[in-house]
Amino acid sequence: MADDVDFYFSFGSPPGYFASTRIDALAAAYGRGVRWRPVDLREVFAEEGLKPTIAYPRKGAYHVRDWARTARLHGIPFAGRPEVAVSPSRVVAVVFYRLADTLGAEAARNFGRDAFHAFFVDHRGVGEPSVLAELVSRVGGDREAVAGVVGAPAHTRRLEAESRAAAERGVFGSPYVIVDDEPFWGFDRFDQLERWLATGGW
Amino acid sequence: MADDVDFYFSFGSPPGYFASTRIDALAAAYGRGVRWRPVDLREVFAEEGLKPTIAYPRKGAYHVRDWARTARLHGIPFAGRPEVAVSPSRVVAVVFYRLADTLGAEAARNFGRDAFHAFFVDHRGVGEPSVLAELVSRVGGDREAVAGVVGAPAHTRRLEAESRAAAERGVFGSPYVIVDDEPFWGFDRFDQLERWLATGGW
Repeated sequence: MADDVDFYFSFGSPPGYFASTRIDALAAAYGRGVRWRPVDLREVFAEEGLKPTIAYPRKGAYHVRDWARTARLHGIPFAGRPEVAVSPSRVVAVVFYRLADTLGAEAARNFGRDAFHAFFVDHRGVGEPSVLAELVSRVGGDREAVAGVVGAPAHTRRLEAESRAAAERGVFGSPYVIVDDEPFWGFDRFDQLERWLATGGW
Repeated sequence: MADDVDFYFSFGSPPGYFASTRIDALAAAYGRGVRWRPVDLREVFAEEGLKPTIAYPRKGAYHVRDWARTARLHGIPFAGRPEVAVSPSRVVAVVFYRLADTLGAEAARNFGRDAFHAFFVDHRGVGEPSVLAELVSRVGGDREAVAGVVGAPAHTRRLEAESRAAAERGVFGSPYVIVDDEPFWGFDRFDQLERWLATGGW
């Protein structure tokens, strides 16, 4: 049985969301499982000298258009990136890992899918405790526990350790998929990713 | 007759080179011509807060690998990006526009193809006067005139005007293709570019 592929992403990233709608079926078609690994890229961005895409004037404006075009092309529901003062990416990732530890990878993944959809399709405030509690309970989690998870150092440290480990593997953006040792950055590398899974490289 | 497409690129850009090997046949298949428009992106990069890809530690290392993998996948000859202290991109672009003005677009384009190949396949110093003179004479240009072109303010201003006009259209990277008013950044958008040419959009 071939190794699972590692799927690194940020919950605030449109191409990370696009990738999340395809990665499991794509990997399964080639007998692979997927490890979902949400990361907080702020520290890597600071080290690299990168800003979030939308912070660049021309590049940001281009991507707003490109994301919408890409979503239409692939038939992915997408209402555009919500304009939020603070990305919910980090809070959602902390809850994701808590669910993974308590209910398992499948529940965490279902929560992740719901959170992506709530943010990028319904434009809900998925970083707010009430919305998180609803999303958590939808996958069988304890909605009362959400308040104790968000901002709790133990859970935050888990996200930081995951993000640090990702950075050490070279991750600098979202989505970033590693198949065995081969890295693929961006939803626009999913064609190469599929070919790699099918052929083992070229 | 549909309008020509605008092909903006830098002579120092690997994906710009990849694009240069495909753009004319791709456009011609849909009844379109191509305006080759080399640009100097330094000013735009400064305005955007961007660095050349290879200047980012993780992102740069990833792209070195990605470029080689992409070239192999598409069967494009590529020996990797030469390590040079100063990119020849600007000097080559100045000569390109000089040839366009004196010998016409086709000669300039052939010179551009030769310069890309000399740099990215043969790793020659295409910014050096002797190499430029050889490349210029190969397309029927005056090799003695090269010295008077490189660094001459009149020719440099032409490149600066082209680069400024490109920036005003939103160009921030290489390659950047505009079809009618639709922009496509990156060799990895050539699949969308082709579909757009075929269908007029989606």
